[in-house]
Amino acid sequence: MGNNFLKEDETLDDLQLKGICVIQKKHAFRFGVDAVLLANFATVKKDATVIDLCTGTGIVPFILSGKTKAFKITGIEIQEEMVEMANRSCRFNKLEDKIKFINKDLKDLKFLKNLSKVDVVTVNPPYKLKNSGIINPNDRDAIARHEICCTLEDVIKACKSVLKDNGRMYMIHRPDRLADIICIMRKYKIEPKLIKMVQPNFKKAPNMLLIEGQNNGGTFLKWETPLCVHNLDGTYTDEINKIYGK
Amino acid sequence: MGNNFLKEDETLDDLQLKGICVIQKKHAFRFGVDAVLLANFATVKKDATVIDLCTGTGIVPFILSGKTKAFKITGIEIQEEMVEMANRSCRFNKLEDKIKFINKDLKDLKFLKNLSKVDVVTVNPPYKLKNSGIINPNDRDAIARHEICCTLEDVIKACKSVLKDNGRMYMIHRPDRLADIICIMRKYKIEPKLIKMVQPNFKKAPNMLLIEGQNNGGTFLKWETPLCVHNLDGTYTDEINKIYGK
Repeated sequence: MGNNFLKEDETLDDLQLKGICVIQKKHAFRFGVDAVLLANFATVKKDATVIDLCTGTGIVPFILSGKTKAFKITGIEIQEEMVEMANRSCRFNKLEDKIKFINKDLKDLKFLKNLSKVDVVTVNPPYKLKNSGIINPNDRDAIARHEICCTLEDVIKACKSVLKDNGRMYMIHRPDRLADIICIMRKYKIEPKLIKMVQPNFKKAPNMLLIEGQNNGGTFLKWETPLCVHNLDGTYTDEINKIYGK
Repeated sequence: MGNNFLKEDETLDDLQLKGICVIQKKHAFRFGVDAVLLANFATVKKDATVIDLCTGTGIVPFILSGKTKAFKITGIEIQEEMVEMANRSCRFNKLEDKIKFINKDLKDLKFLKNLSKVDVVTVNPPYKLKNSGIINPNDRDAIARHEICCTLEDVIKACKSVLKDNGRMYMIHRPDRLADIICIMRKYKIEPKLIKMVQPNFKKAPNMLLIEGQNNGGTFLKWETPLCVHNLDGTYTDEINKIYGK
């Protein structure tokens, strides 16, 4: 099944969600728990329009198409071969009417501003600062993980440029960047509304954070109970099993 | 014991820490778990100088005098009768050489700037916005709990005005104010360095946060494991028992 859709260096992975599958490279950047958590954190109402920035394999649009009644979901990705692959996933799942992928740089604000404004933006951006660690700028993984092609400010500026008034952005990022995230969101008048920290288990410090911001929203920041990925015995928590549909 | 030190509407409460006791009003604002958590969160090195803003009963200076080797601790409080009471606690504990309390408004920046700069500032400020809930502005409790006499920005400005270069401030506050806290700290070039969320138990959302900021510090925000006050069965957690010396 799906072999006509696959290249030799690719796999077809079943999301365990309404039969949706996602094509991934065998050895290059593969989606992780962060993308899955982001897709589950976002509130997407019936008939909402969604843009997913830094979409990669398209994992977030595919999960959202299975879990929500979004009207249209557009994934934007700077790496051409990822976009080609995500579009093949789209055809494989017969979701072309709902999801499309575009090969664009999110710094192309002229392009973004010409799109129809959307209700929701999701983004799982590169986490690591450009100068942290040794990186090869031609490396696909490096582009997905480090701020080579875009900074945190570029990401938030891109969210701003596509959001409707009062529209919401959802991002997953590292806790150590929260001060930057909050200050840059406020700089672009996207008000932080909800934070959920993610911990490896309840005895460990958070290593990811989920944040919701509202374009031109009023000031009130709510916090959810932190999400713990594992129980102390190493098994997945009920919350994670529920997210993964188990 | 201590009856000569006490007025009729007061109690003498044993901190279970090197025999230190604190005088409190029977019915007015009494110190809570927040002050105790703040005093335990602050890193105070040997011979450090400390200012505690919004000191109230003086609880934070008294705990710090028992737990650290601080050189001098000064508590600043706007309510005259609280200062008089805290000074009586000080004499009762024979800590006049180490701790003193001053009756001043933290908005009096002229006064603050003339003090010797300190290594550490602690502050457990009024949490509630001025317009939230019905309040009586002459009420001692209201002054301690609401932003009547000082705003969050006044508090952070006061920290800035007394801190040495690279000195640290420690504050306990509500999670819903974190965006404001971070943005105002950065406005005054106090960099957020460490956050510890406090949860009623590990299945509940945080209801307090502890934050450390460094005056003119570099950008790196660390997170600690959240502190849970209770176990699921309602008993205190080991971490809380340890803080309370049990």
